[in-house]
Amino acid sequence: MSFADRIRHCNSYDPARAMPLWAGGHRVGWLRRDNAEVLARHRDVFAIDRDSARLLATGGADTVSRAVDEVVEALVADRLVPKWRNETFDVAPRWGEPPIFRLDRGAVPFFGVRAYGVHLNGYRRDGDRYSLWIGKRASNKQVAPGKLDNMVAGGIGNGYGAAATLAKEAEEEAAIPAALIARAVPAGGLTYRMETKPGIRDDVMFVYDLEVPDDFTPTNGDGEIAGFELMPLSLILERIRTTNDFKFNVNLVILDFAVRHGVLRPDDPEYLDVANGLHRPLD
Amino acid sequence: MSFADRIRHCNSYDPARAMPLWAGGHRVGWLRRDNAEVLARHRDVFAIDRDSARLLATGGADTVSRAVDEVVEALVADRLVPKWRNETFDVAPRWGEPPIFRLDRGAVPFFGVRAYGVHLNGYRRDGDRYSLWIGKRASNKQVAPGKLDNMVAGGIGNGYGAAATLAKEAEEEAAIPAALIARAVPAGGLTYRMETKPGIRDDVMFVYDLEVPDDFTPTNGDGEIAGFELMPLSLILERIRTTNDFKFNVNLVILDFAVRHGVLRPDDPEYLDVANGLHRPLD
Repeated sequence: MSFADRIRHCNSYDPARAMPLWAGGHRVGWLRRDNAEVLARHRDVFAIDRDSARLLATGGADTVSRAVDEVVEALVADRLVPKWRNETFDVAPRWGEPPIFRLDRGAVPFFGVRAYGVHLNGYRRDGDRYSLWIGKRASNKQVAPGKLDNMVAGGIGNGYGAAATLAKEAEEEAAIPAALIARAVPAGGLTYRMETKPGIRDDVMFVYDLEVPDDFTPTNGDGEIAGFELMPLSLILERIRTTNDFKFNVNLVILDFAVRHGVLRPDDPEYLDVANGLHRPLD
Repeated sequence: MSFADRIRHCNSYDPARAMPLWAGGHRVGWLRRDNAEVLARHRDVFAIDRDSARLLATGGADTVSRAVDEVVEALVADRLVPKWRNETFDVAPRWGEPPIFRLDRGAVPFFGVRAYGVHLNGYRRDGDRYSLWIGKRASNKQVAPGKLDNMVAGGIGNGYGAAATLAKEAEEEAAIPAALIARAVPAGGLTYRMETKPGIRDDVMFVYDLEVPDDFTPTNGDGEIAGFELMPLSLILERIRTTNDFKFNVNLVILDFAVRHGVLRPDDPEYLDVANGLHRPLD
């Protein structure tokens, strides 16, 4: 395994296995062909052609969301969508634009809708040596149970921005006080597109760095993290290269941290594939 | 003009106007079609088909370079390549691999060969407020005369690595002592592909950050920079948005600095297009 393999693993999307999903003149999802066949049964809400799918429901976000929700309800009943998460994501033409509709988080990969999240690198620094606070995901998490994770991470739900999501998750997941998380520095956006069992993850991760004071120890409040450990970045990178211990997309967040802080360096032959591979075009 | 427009300006490459240039089984350049027609005259060195071009010369890098040089000599005589720069760039299948041949820097865009450079953000920081040392390019520079530039920037010539190029250019361009430039932190690689008069620029910029002490003032030693000025980043960003004062690719380096240091922030609707647009796939 190389670092670049970790990035490839998160970019397993194969365009030949999917078709665009259109809504109101905008491409809003990538629908795997087997999922498109399922949607073809709901011909009052979706029109499925040979190479594209179209959402027929029109109107305000509330109206369209209700029409899509009825389909999602059927998908849940057929166990094609894992379960309701009771947390909705905005589906908009682009980041920062008003949503066309809202979609239950559990159904996002089925439709291949772009999802946005925040990831926090909580670090300590001693000269050029960095350590990161790493969380271990609870064993009952739906995605990547038991895997290692960033200090804080979470999806951007309907109505929240990136900064508000970070503050909320920082408090719930790691008991980081508002005054401390306010010092987190946004440092970019990473992108990948991955085929998973339910469909396609088309993800944007907004990354933040926070220098954590020596006297602060994160503690989990919502049961999603089993525990935290402060690990030297050099050992983390070794585990990223040689094990599957970290959640698939957390590998990318930490590689980006290592690139931005000069821990990986340009004269390494693998450097450019890593630095560039973390950014998939937003097509 | 928006920030994203600056990025689009550097990505004006249109695949319909070019064809791949192959050497030893590797795609090593993007040849504009009018340039391919010119190369067709040199049928002992290049084979030009309808949709691709192939370097026929084989052997070690010295042998292949000599064959290509003879063609470049003819191109210079025909004023299709501006002039010899007497500085050669390695042409390799990928970053970090041994070169197939070496090419005079002046001929690089004619062949659309990938070129690598280093760019240094020399900054001072006062809390959340950054200032950057900005150079003004000499009026006799071949590319972008009189435009504003990073504190240090330069192409990676044959036989140099990124770190060695940075140290050399830092000394020549800004009289930065070795002990100071050694503190520069590599922070990523930016990519763009742009059609210019002579051909196609397929560029990789390795970016470095250096916190410059208050008592250091850069001075130019090689005549390539007319002068330096310390400018607040907020004003620089305003000029990037509203003027053409900065060299085309320097806009990208500074936008990346602003993204990495949290000066641009995710909840800005333009953020994602900027953060993502600085990284074109290495195809």
